[in-house]
Amino acid sequence: MSDEVPLDGEPADTHEAIMMATFSALRKHGYPGISIQRIADESELTKSTFYHHFDGKDDILLSFVRYMREYFERGYRIESTGDPVGDLRAFVTVSLGEYPGPDGTPNPEARLSTYLELRAQAIQNPAFRSEFTELSAALVRNLTDIIETGVGQGVFTVNDPAATAEYLVATIEGINLQQTTRTDGPRTMLQESLERYIRTEVLAEDVSF
Amino acid sequence: MSDEVPLDGEPADTHEAIMMATFSALRKHGYPGISIQRIADESELTKSTFYHHFDGKDDILLSFVRYMREYFERGYRIESTGDPVGDLRAFVTVSLGEYPGPDGTPNPEARLSTYLELRAQAIQNPAFRSEFTELSAALVRNLTDIIETGVGQGVFTVNDPAATAEYLVATIEGINLQQTTRTDGPRTMLQESLERYIRTEVLAEDVSF
Repeated sequence: MSDEVPLDGEPADTHEAIMMATFSALRKHGYPGISIQRIADESELTKSTFYHHFDGKDDILLSFVRYMREYFERGYRIESTGDPVGDLRAFVTVSLGEYPGPDGTPNPEARLSTYLELRAQAIQNPAFRSEFTELSAALVRNLTDIIETGVGQGVFTVNDPAATAEYLVATIEGINLQQTTRTDGPRTMLQESLERYIRTEVLAEDVSF
Repeated sequence: MSDEVPLDGEPADTHEAIMMATFSALRKHGYPGISIQRIADESELTKSTFYHHFDGKDDILLSFVRYMREYFERGYRIESTGDPVGDLRAFVTVSLGEYPGPDGTPNPEARLSTYLELRAQAIQNPAFRSEFTELSAALVRNLTDIIETGVGQGVFTVNDPAATAEYLVATIEGINLQQTTRTDGPRTMLQESLERYIRTEVLAEDVSF
């Protein structure tokens, strides 16, 4: 899979082509309207190529959830700075969908919307639930590492890095849920409150964010 | 509409019967599998009664979103104490779905799951988005009132009650999203972090929660 053209540009291989077609089809039709035919329609591949690679619609969508997770991790790697304060900022920026992709990349709202629409399938569908449990654990582990590094360096004052990471991830996903399900776009206001929380509850006293 | 038997017991009228059938059908089939026939199957009403009251499936579901909002407000009224600290606790308890209903009432997880599954429709469907924008505004207004009362009485120290209310609502919905889309049930841990936030960022120094 290419490291350079996630969700846009020329697909590096058939798997990436299928993932990009899945994203386009989800944007056009939403989860309730998705079908293998409609995913195939967004690509230059035939329907039988899809059946050759996947067991069915949900199998493709579950693979797409893993693809989104890699996409997030790639965005985070590009934005991260190596110091824990910068890495925390990068984590927040990328989690709020604000990672600026190259021209032609889906906008942040499109990425977050698709992510949350699939996440909502986890409410009823055990396979999605299992996939999002793993995805959440990976995000929390990633953020816990950043916080532990910062505590070790004395730039963060946090008693329980794992609990703080869980809470931050939940809050960020709550902000994204508000942003993608309301017409009044509350993200800027919510992001300011989140940053205030980070300054008062995470950072050591003389550290700026 | 009865004030006593929300989402369970004997429906007070046809509208309530339709709402209760909608809830059952959503629990059984999820949004993608919902149809008027399947809603009718959960009631003693005929399909034509549904068409007499509603324009179609989405019209019933939008009405159900308003019903859930009334259900929340009823739960909050029952739990609220009249003092701002108790009211804040009641708001958090009810928002996390922990309002204990009478026997036969759907469990908290079932209520939250249905709420979030419908909320996810707002990502793609403008009518749902408009409905959830109003619902969110009502929740935030309600919580802002509680915080302003607490600030007035000197039990809360908050500079911007509306921003704090927005942030708390987003965080609570993020906690509910984690709880309903993961298998590892992180609510207890997240709720403790939320209560710590309220103690350090909302309550005046000598006030307990």
